Amino acid sequence: MAENKNIEVILSPGLFTNISSPKPYVVVVVDIFRATTSICAALDYGVKAIIPVKRIRHARFLKRLGYTVAAERGGHKVRFAHLGNSATAFFKPEFKGKEIVYSTTNGTKAIRKASGAKNIIIGSFVNLSAVARWLDRYGENVVIFCAGWKNKVNMEDTLFAGALSDMLINKYGFTTNDDSAKLAIDQWKMAKDDLIGYIEQSSHRRRLRHLVDDELLQYTFSIDKSNVVPVLKGYKVVPDNPKD
Amino acid sequence: MAENKNIEVILSPGLFTNISSPKPYVVVVVDIFRATTSICAALDYGVKAIIPVKRIRHARFLKRLGYTVAAERGGHKVRFAHLGNSATAFFKPEFKGKEIVYSTTNGTKAIRKASGAKNIIIGSFVNLSAVARWLDRYGENVVIFCAGWKNKVNMEDTLFAGALSDMLINKYGFTTNDDSAKLAIDQWKMAKDDLIGYIEQSSHRRRLRHLVDDELLQYTFSIDKSNVVPVLKGYKVVPDNPKD
Repeated sequence: MAENKNIEVILSPGLFTNISSPKPYVVVVVDIFRATTSICAALDYGVKAIIPVKRIRHARFLKRLGYTVAAERGGHKVRFAHLGNSATAFFKPEFKGKEIVYSTTNGTKAIRKASGAKNIIIGSFVNLSAVARWLDRYGENVVIFCAGWKNKVNMEDTLFAGALSDMLINKYGFTTNDDSAKLAIDQWKMAKDDLIGYIEQSSHRRRLRHLVDDELLQYTFSIDKSNVVPVLKGYKVVPDNPKD
Repeated sequence: MAENKNIEVILSPGLFTNISSPKPYVVVVVDIFRATTSICAALDYGVKAIIPVKRIRHARFLKRLGYTVAAERGGHKVRFAHLGNSATAFFKPEFKGKEIVYSTTNGTKAIRKASGAKNIIIGSFVNLSAVARWLDRYGENVVIFCAGWKNKVNMEDTLFAGALSDMLINKYGFTTNDDSAKLAIDQWKMAKDDLIGYIEQSSHRRRLRHLVDDELLQYTFSIDKSNVVPVLKGYKVVPDNPKD
């Protein structure tokens, strides 16, 4: 259905200024460590919606209104929050069916920046094939938007952009003439046989080493654990599960 | 001399907002198609200085003051200019010893953006080893700044960033923990045995296919044809030839 639709990759928010893809397009937001992996995990587990907020004071305000709040700074749960931001923190029965406020600078910034697009969905290794299938059915051009880190390019988001582009091209007939997409695809091909080993080299991974335990690292790079496709509706991210 | 100095790669101007390298650092500006390759070619051939200007009307004004002007738009020499912007256009005896005004949107923008740095030099495949040697002797941290194209990442500048990073690390003991540098190095390793074939895949190359003839393409990717290291002094780029 998406035969010949175009793929464009934006490797970091500072490059989200000059989208060359013809409209309409879907934006896939990617922040592997951690927002988009965590959002997929939460919705897959049964959380009803994630409400991404940028500022910690907004998260605190929403807590007073009765929301459950996931928030951390510097890798530690902030005191007033119910849980931290890791994917695995959401796997508790009491969170099922809840709307959870998720405080994240990086991820939220990317989601807001993309908000001119008609459709914004959330990608991670955990739901890679589900996202590709969804994009094929939707049948529009695709902009893969990496949240990066502090306006820099990072390895893990680039690898995901490569994995998704590669699948869209080879399985669903998408095309690209975007150099960033090509860089990402080559990187993915180089890394895919030992994804975690490859990530271990990366500065961002090093930065997160004290934040990411082995269980979370394994989860983050386990491909296709979930069929959930998180979609932004207004200010909420909700699951849009494909039928099959 | 530059043992343990740091390398950081900026893949496109939109990412030149958050340099994490400690000062002081040298910025190497890269615009393979075409400004930095042309500047190296010109200075190597014997042009005395290149004066990069962004606006065509500034180039025209400087022509009236008596300067020789290199300028093109959309791949064609602009009518009032003495020559176009290609490297090979500079190889004429009448240009030796001259100061030539060079009109380029991309390259000039990158040079201006970098102008907070103490030192700005110009890199291209043509002077790759000379630049690496110069940086080693200079002994400061290095920021490799790719001009990209329309605030996008491009293949040829990324490949050069990878080539230079690889040489600085392996030959001169520089280090990096920058994901962009790692991406670029991997890309370089993948491409280096058939650089032109690899570039043929790239969108930017396709865009330039009608602009770059075979001779110019060969020149652009001929590594170490020159020992010249162009350095920005005020508004002029002048050669800083290493002794050996």
